[in-house]
Order: sequence, then structure tokens, then C-alpha cells
Amino acid sequence: MAWITLTTDFGQRDWFVAAMKGVILQRLPEARIVDLAHDAPAGDVASAAFMLGQALAWFPEEAVHVAVIDPGVGSERAPLAWRWRRGFLVGPDNGLWSWLERLTGHRLGEVRRLEHPACRLPHLSHTFHGRDLFAPAAAWLAAGGRFEEIGPAVSSWVTLPWPGPQASERGWHGEILYVDHFGNLITNLPNDLVAVDPGEWIVRWGAQGSSPVADHYGAVKAGHPVAVPGSTGFIELAINQRSAARTLGLARGASVELSRRGAG
Amino acid sequence: MAWITLTTDFGQRDWFVAAMKGVILQRLPEARIVDLAHDAPAGDVASAAFMLGQALAWFPEEAVHVAVIDPGVGSERAPLAWRWRRGFLVGPDNGLWSWLERLTGHRLGEVRRLEHPACRLPHLSHTFHGRDLFAPAAAWLAAGGRFEEIGPAVSSWVTLPWPGPQASERGWHGEILYVDHFGNLITNLPNDLVAVDPGEWIVRWGAQGSSPVADHYGAVKAGHPVAVPGSTGFIELAINQRSAARTLGLARGASVELSRRGAG
Amino acid sequence: MAWITLTTDFGQRDWFVAAMKGVILQRLPEARIVDLAHDAPAGDVASAAFMLGQALAWFPEEAVHVAVIDPGVGSERAPLAWRWRRGFLVGPDNGLWSWLERLTGHRLGEVRRLEHPACRLPHLSHTFHGRDLFAPAAAWLAAGGRFEEIGPAVSSWVTLPWPGPQASERGWHGEILYVDHFGNLITNLPNDLVAVDPGEWIVRWGAQGSSPVADHYGAVKAGHPVAVPGSTGFIELAINQRSAARTLGLARGASVELSRRGAG
Repeated sequence: MAWITLTTDFGQRDWFVAAMKGVILQRLPEARIVDLAHDAPAGDVASAAFMLGQALAWFPEEAVHVAVIDPGVGSERAPLAWRWRRGFLVGPDNGLWSWLERLTGHRLGEVRRLEHPACRLPHLSHTFHGRDLFAPAAAWLAAGGRFEEIGPAVSSWVTLPWPGPQASERGWHGEILYVDHFGNLITNLPNDLVAVDPGEWIVRWGAQGSSPVADHYGAVKAGHPVAVPGSTGFIELAINQRSAARTLGLARGASVELSRRGAG
Repeated sequence: MAWITLTTDFGQRDWFVAAMKGVILQRLPEARIVDLAHDAPAGDVASAAFMLGQALAWFPEEAVHVAVIDPGVGSERAPLAWRWRRGFLVGPDNGLWSWLERLTGHRLGEVRRLEHPACRLPHLSHTFHGRDLFAPAAAWLAAGGRFEEIGPAVSSWVTLPWPGPQASERGWHGEILYVDHFGNLITNLPNDLVAVDPGEWIVRWGAQGSSPVADHYGAVKAGHPVAVPGSTGFIELAINQRSAARTLGLARGASVELSRRGAG
Repeated sequence: MAWITLTTDFGQRDWFVAAMKGVILQRLPEARIVDLAHDAPAGDVASAAFMLGQALAWFPEEAVHVAVIDPGVGSERAPLAWRWRRGFLVGPDNGLWSWLERLTGHRLGEVRRLEHPACRLPHLSHTFHGRDLFAPAAAWLAAGGRFEEIGPAVSSWVTLPWPGPQASERGWHGEILYVDHFGNLITNLPNDLVAVDPGEWIVRWGAQGSSPVADHYGAVKAGHPVAVPGSTGFIELAINQRSAARTLGLARGASVELSRRGAG
């Protein structure tokens, strides 16, 4: 089957996602399109990179994954396609796939610039490459088009550095990588750090904030903070039955520390 | 065909719904997945129970319906599957299916605990059973897995009481059961109560509020309140072209009274 | 294949869209349903008309397109079906298809009132014709039902006037037609007006506002206004990496002027 997933920051109010689907379905009626997310934070490439790293490995092999979080649309940034161990990736060259290998364990391969005429609409707008360029390219690849023909190989592309945790006196300095819909704060601290003796650790933030580590949200009373080894592979800071982002006033990039109880 | 519907409070911003779909499609590529709703009020089991009761009867028979509004994820609450007259139901044991028989007229049958190894990912997180447990269980049932093998039968499960209306001196005491996207306030007062002589009734709320009963929103001027026999089978309180929830300041659980004109 | 697209203002919180899908799938299990948009501004027929004009031409021929932005549901407004050059259209008679010919170049044909018993549920509510009337009608047409049998031909229907730009002393008076999810302000000024010498033009608004015309958002610094020939065929007023709607305080219907640099 010809799977295509779509990840954008286009929202659900307008016709942008539908136009991409129409373009795909006109070219490849049997395409099976799956919406990954369309309410990704506008223009936030790093959050999208984390999201793609969390989602793509669950899909069938040989899917074509399109991501259009593209604040530079119409500028010089290149439109690219990547061969990936589990399919193909299509999107702008702005770092969206930076963390995919790290988060999925599946390697990126060859990268090519989208230039084949079948991979673009006859008229290319400057503001909607999702419809005019990335959708036809995805349909072409999903239909079995040869990757080598899509355009010239490219030897460098934009990569966001991975913000790994740093050893601290009391444990590890980390940061918030992603804020989810519930307001849970997903950190860059791997679950493994607390696998052996979770009860020995606490997560600290700001001047005074601290939270125990427990294995599920409900381990603390409603309204209380708790750090939980998350389904992403990383520790998340949550408030049971509340939004931690709103309650604690923390956003992506905020510093946290994982430290041993009693240390410092 | 192998139908699977998904109802969650995961929102559309993150990869949570997509990960569930990927897990299903890897196991059962021919699955036809339908999104029921993903912006259900977070953790609000009663609203979800009403929603499921309104939606599920419209779907093809033998669909598998998954609902993950699951504030207790990771706690002791059991993961269950229900046999239903029109298919199977999968989700946490927290009352989500409480009103399904009443609202659809189709009976629930046997209930089993999800324990078959094929019904869970090799590694089960404590925070995302939608992906790790309920999605694989749904794929397994939709693929024709025998219900009897899914796990041991269970004899009791959580049920929310149905908040039926109570006779009052002037008519009926009721309450708001569900607030929809438009801000319409759906009550627990069956349409039948006003079927014979709608013009004889009014709906009252708070100290002073009252509204006529009419057959459609536009029967009153824009900005005016009206009570309408709704598409749910229950009377809804609306403001023509406005949000009644916002305008009247009423929420789920608020009291209303259906009373005869002139009474009291 | 039997394509059906759905465009509504029902939002994603409730079961309304799902009920429509269920009704379609019970009648036509092989239907391929595509969500066009469900968060269209509530009751805003003009914005929906612009959206439909932007989206529908991208879909496969012979699709059935359903639109339910229907503030008059339950009133006397007629439920209609239109034959269109590229398929069929189903919805209330309130102007939703007014701009489809103009925006797609594909002509509307015969119009009929939905009366065939197969095109409605046995019990028709007064508040949810999307489920009770438009969904079964779409399934019936997509299944190959003869258009001529759907009900009596209708000779007039509601049409919204097209708000074309007017020549001004300095160039053209225009207005905002649509505000998108990013807050970009799409005008009624065709891209062609600035095709020859974009650098010669500026867009003005309010007492003092003015913006250069450039070919992509990033041609100005972050936070600065820019007018860009848009993917819709019309000039849009944007703020690079911000919401122009919020920053400039402009909404649908607001006046703008396209004028020659130095003029006035």
C-alpha cells in the first residue's frame, strides 16, 4: 500500500491540508493518507523534529512522510527528499529530521533536491510549497517513482544540534524539549537515568520548584507535581490532572535539574 | 471491512493519535480508522460517555471502538474490552460506556480484561496505554482475534449513574449533560416531554432565566435564548447565533427546569 | 472510487462529524471520506465560500462535496444538490457555492432540492441536517444514484455577490476576504495586478499602515509587514513570523488599497 503521512502547522481551519490531500489523490487515488498532526506550533521546527522522531517509527515501512513546518517558504531554503531506513521523507531543508535517527534508531540515507517536473505543480507559488511541491513529490515517490530521478544528490543539509543533558554536581542539567497538549513538560532527560532507583531522585526547576519521580501521574494528589518516566523515552514533568506548563509557567527550553534526594 | 474508531482527549497538536494509528496499521494495514473526536474535554469521562452514546450507533456493525479518556492511566484501573451488540469496545475501566445501552438501545455483553500478549506492545509505558495497549488490542480484535482469548472475563466494572430528570411541582428538574462546540447546552430532558404541546413549556435556569421551546434555533431573534428538541433526543438550550454556555454562564451539571407556562 | 469531502463548522470536540461519517459508511462502506475542514468560522458562509473555491478543484473528478455551515438549520432554507463540472455539491441553500465557478473556472450546472426518501434518515431532526439529510444524500450520489431522481429542479438559489476590487485614484480599493490560521489577510486583489512590476506597488490600510509587495514572507525582517502574491491567486497581507490579523487589528471586510509607490 502507498502510505503517506502529513505533518504541518497549517491548522484545521483552512483548506491547506485538504488541498495537499487533493493534489495527492488526483495523482495517486489509492494513496492512504494519514494525518500525523496539523496543529504543530507555527514555525517551531524543533518541536516538530521531536514529534516526528516520536511518531514515524510506528508507521508501516516504505511510507512517505511529508512535513511542512516551513517558516522559510519561498526563500532560498531547498526542498529536499531523504531516503530513510523505513521509507522516504519530504520537506523543506530546515532541520525537521534532525533527531529522527536518534529517536527512532533508524538511519537516514541519501538526500536529493526536488527537481523532477512530476514533483511540482505547473505553477509554483511562493507561499504554499506543501501543495505545489511537497504533495506532488510525495505522491510520485509513493507511486513508485525512483528516488534517484527526483533530483540531484545533496551533500549537506540543515541539522539542529541535539540538546543532551549535562552532568551537574547533583545529577544532571536538562531542559524542556516539548510541551504537549495536556501541558506535560517533556524533558531531554532519558528515563534510564532513574530506572534503577526512581525514589532516589527529584526534578528541580526555577528557584524553589521540586517534584518526586514516580511511575504514573496519579502517584501524587491532584494538583501536585510529579516527574514520570514518559512514553517518549524521556522524563516528563507533570501536574496530576492539571497543565504543568500553565501551573509552573515553564515553556520549551526552560532548565530543569535531575538531582539526587538530599544532594545540594 | 475492519473498522476502528478512535475517541480520545489527546488533542491534535501532538503525535499521540498518530502513534495509535501507526500501531494499528502496522498490525492491520487494511484497517479503516475513523477519528471520532480527539478534542474531548481532558479527563471528562461523563462528557465522553455522552458523546460515545450519541456517535457509535451510526457506525457499521462489527466496528471496534476505542476510547481513551483516561485520567487514571498507569494506576490500578483495569484495561478492558466489551462485547457490544454492534461490535467491540476497548478502553480503560472508568465508566466511558456507562450510557451506551441507554442512548443507543444496543446491549453490552461480556467484558474481559486485556491480557493476551498480542494486545500490548513489548514495552508497556505507564503514561500512554492508548498506543501500548488499546491500539494493539483494537487491531487484534478487528483482525478477527477471538474475544474469548483476549483475557479473563470480568464481572464488575465502573459505571456512572445516569442523571435522569426529576419531577418537580411545575414540571421537571433537569441538568446540563453536555456543552457542545457551539456552546449549545444539551440537557437530560428528553424531547418527548414537549412533543405534544411545545408551546406550553418553558425552560428556566438560575434566578431569572427563561426560554421558550421552539423547533429550531432561528425561531427566535439572534442573541435570544431558545430551547429546542435536539438531534440527541434531548432538549438543548441555545442562543440563536451565539454561545449559550458563554452568554448564560452555564456549564455541565448546571440545573435547569422544564416547566409549564404560567406554572409557579 | 466514491469520494466524499466534508466541510463544516462543527469543530472537532463533539461527535457531529463522526455521526455524518457513520451515516455515510453504513450506506456506502467503500466511500473514501476526506475532511476538508471542520473548524471553519461558525456560521460564516462567506469565508466558507472562499475556502470551498480554493479547495475543491484539487480533488478527483466526480467527488461529492458536502458543506454544512448552516446557521439557518431547521428554518425554511432549502436543502439542495448542485451538479458541478467536477462532481456534485450538497448543502443548505445559503450561498456556500457562490464563488466556486469564479475561483475554480469549473461551471455549476443543474440544481435540485433534496427530496428522495433515500436522501434522509427516517427521522429528520431540526438541528442536525448534516447527519440526517446531507450525509445520506452524499452517500446516495456517491453510490451512483441518478441526480435527476434526487428531487425537483430548482431555478433560483442564494448567491453572495463577489466583492471585486474597485479602481481608485492611486490604484485599487480592495478588502480582506479571508483570514487564515496564521493570521495572514487574504485580499480580493488579484496577483495579476502586481505581476509586471511588484516593486512599484504598496498596500495601504487604516490611517497610516503600508507595506511593500514582495514575493515571499521572508523578504522582510521578522515582525515587519509584507504583501505577497498568494497561493490563492490573490495578494495577501502578512507579517513575517507573526499574525497580521492580530498585529494590525484587521478582520474580514476591512478595507485595503493597492497603490503605486509615490502616488497620493
